[in-house]
Amino acid sequence: MKRRDFVTKVGLGALAGGTLSAPAIKSAHAAPKVLKMVTSWPKNFPGLGTGAREFGELLEAASGGRYQVKLYAGGELVHPLKCHDAVQEGTADLYHSAEYYYKGKSISLAFFTAVPFGFTANEMDAWLLHGGGEKLWDEANADFGIKSLPCGNTGSQMGGWFKKEVNTLDDMKGLKMRMPGLGGDVLKAIGATALTLAGSEIMPALQAGTIDATEWVGPWNDLAFGFYKVAKHYYSPGFHEPGATLSLV
Amino acid sequence: MKRRDFVTKVGLGALAGGTLSAPAIKSAHAAPKVLKMVTSWPKNFPGLGTGAREFGELLEAASGGRYQVKLYAGGELVHPLKCHDAVQEGTADLYHSAEYYYKGKSISLAFFTAVPFGFTANEMDAWLLHGGGEKLWDEANADFGIKSLPCGNTGSQMGGWFKKEVNTLDDMKGLKMRMPGLGGDVLKAIGATALTLAGSEIMPALQAGTIDATEWVGPWNDLAFGFYKVAKHYYSPGFHEPGATLSLV
Repeated sequence: MKRRDFVTKVGLGALAGGTLSAPAIKSAHAAPKVLKMVTSWPKNFPGLGTGAREFGELLEAASGGRYQVKLYAGGELVHPLKCHDAVQEGTADLYHSAEYYYKGKSISLAFFTAVPFGFTANEMDAWLLHGGGEKLWDEANADFGIKSLPCGNTGSQMGGWFKKEVNTLDDMKGLKMRMPGLGGDVLKAIGATALTLAGSEIMPALQAGTIDATEWVGPWNDLAFGFYKVAKHYYSPGFHEPGATLSLV
Repeated sequence: MKRRDFVTKVGLGALAGGTLSAPAIKSAHAAPKVLKMVTSWPKNFPGLGTGAREFGELLEAASGGRYQVKLYAGGELVHPLKCHDAVQEGTADLYHSAEYYYKGKSISLAFFTAVPFGFTANEMDAWLLHGGGEKLWDEANADFGIKSLPCGNTGSQMGGWFKKEVNTLDDMKGLKMRMPGLGGDVLKAIGATALTLAGSEIMPALQAGTIDATEWVGPWNDLAFGFYKVAKHYYSPGFHEPGATLSLV
C-alpha cells in the first residue's frame, strides 16, 4: 500500500513521537502525490480540525514536497464517523479521528481513545509509546488492514451539557445523552441511553429533543457549537475521558 | 435480550416468510412495549421507508397490541448508515436497512444484500430461506450479537446517474461514484473511486462535485431525490445489484 510506503519513509518513530524534524527527503522533481485525509471534525474546528490541518502541513514539509495532504472536513468526502471505513476501503489515504467512534467494528478500538476513570493524557502516551499499547492497537486493527498512531490528546474532558439539573445518579435514569465509546457503556449501565453522534450532529439533536444532554470536549471546543444556548447546565469534570487520544491512521 | 424474546414469540418462520397471519397473541392488559426501529431511509421514502413503516404496523398487529414500533427515519436517532451499530449497542431494538452498508465491520455482510452479476430477487430468497444463506448470515453477525432476516427486495437496480456520458470502460477511470457494497469494489478494480453514502447524502455530494455519478435504486425511488436535475445520463441495467435484499434486524 502506498500509504504504508509513505509512513515508512518519513519514519514511524518520528511520527509517533510528534518530533517531525524534516528528514530531508528531497523531491526528484516528480509531481507531489496527493494524500486524501478525512477527519471527523467540522471545517477548521478549533483544536481538533486545526490540529489535523497542521499535522497535514507538517507532513508535507517533512516530505520535502513529495506529498501533498488534501484535508476533508467531516461530511465532505465521507460521513464524519466513517473515517475508519474510508481508509479500510481505500476511499481515503489517512484519517484524523478518535478510535472509539469505531467500537462497533471492534470493541477493543475504544480503549485507544479513552477508558472511563482511566489514563490521563500523559499516561495514555506512556502506555501507547512505551508500555505496549501501540502493539495492542496494531492487533485491534489487523483485521482491517489499518495502521494507527496517536496524534493529539484533548486532556481531561468536561462532564457535559444538560437540559435539566443532575444531582443524583437517579437523575441520569432515562436520560438520552450523546456519549461515544466506553463512557457510553457506563451510561447504559446506570439506566441512561447513550448515542454516538458526530460533532456536527449534536446541536440539531439537542434542539429536536433526540437527546437531553451531551458531552463534547471542553469549554474551548464546546463554545464553537453553542450548546449553552440549549442546555443550561454544564458539569465538570467528566468521568468518561480523563485524556482522550486522537488518532492518525 | 428482549428483542430476541419478541422475535421468538411472533414466530421466526412467519417473519422470514412474510406470512404474518396474526398468531392471536392477546395483551394481558399490560402497557405495550415500545420497540425502537431505526432505518437507513429518509422519512416516508417511497418503497424503502414506507415498506419499513408497513412492516412495523404488521408487527404491532401480529402482537395483538403487546408491542408498539416507533419508527425513526435515517438521521432521526442515529445516522442512516449506523443502524447496525445502534442495535449492536442497544440504542435501538430493530433496524430496516441493507447489510452492505456495514461491510466495513465484516466484508461477509455485503453478500446478504447483493453480489455483482449474482442472484436475482427470487434466487436471493431461495438461497436465504432454503439454501443455507440464513445460517451463513447468522454466522456473519454472531460477533455482533445480532439476528438478521430478509425483509424486502428492490429487484434488479438501474446502472445509475452520470454527469458525463459513459461509452467505454475507460470512461469509468477516475470517476467518483456513489456505490456501496461489493459493486463498489468492482468499480475500484476498474479504476473508479467508490463512495458509500446514505441516500440523503447523495444529492448534496452530486451538487458539490464530491461525486460524478451515483446509483440508488430505480426510477420510482430515484425520482424522489431529483438526481435527473444534476446528472443527465441514466443507464440501465446495473451490474451491481441484480436483486438487492433489504434486511430486518
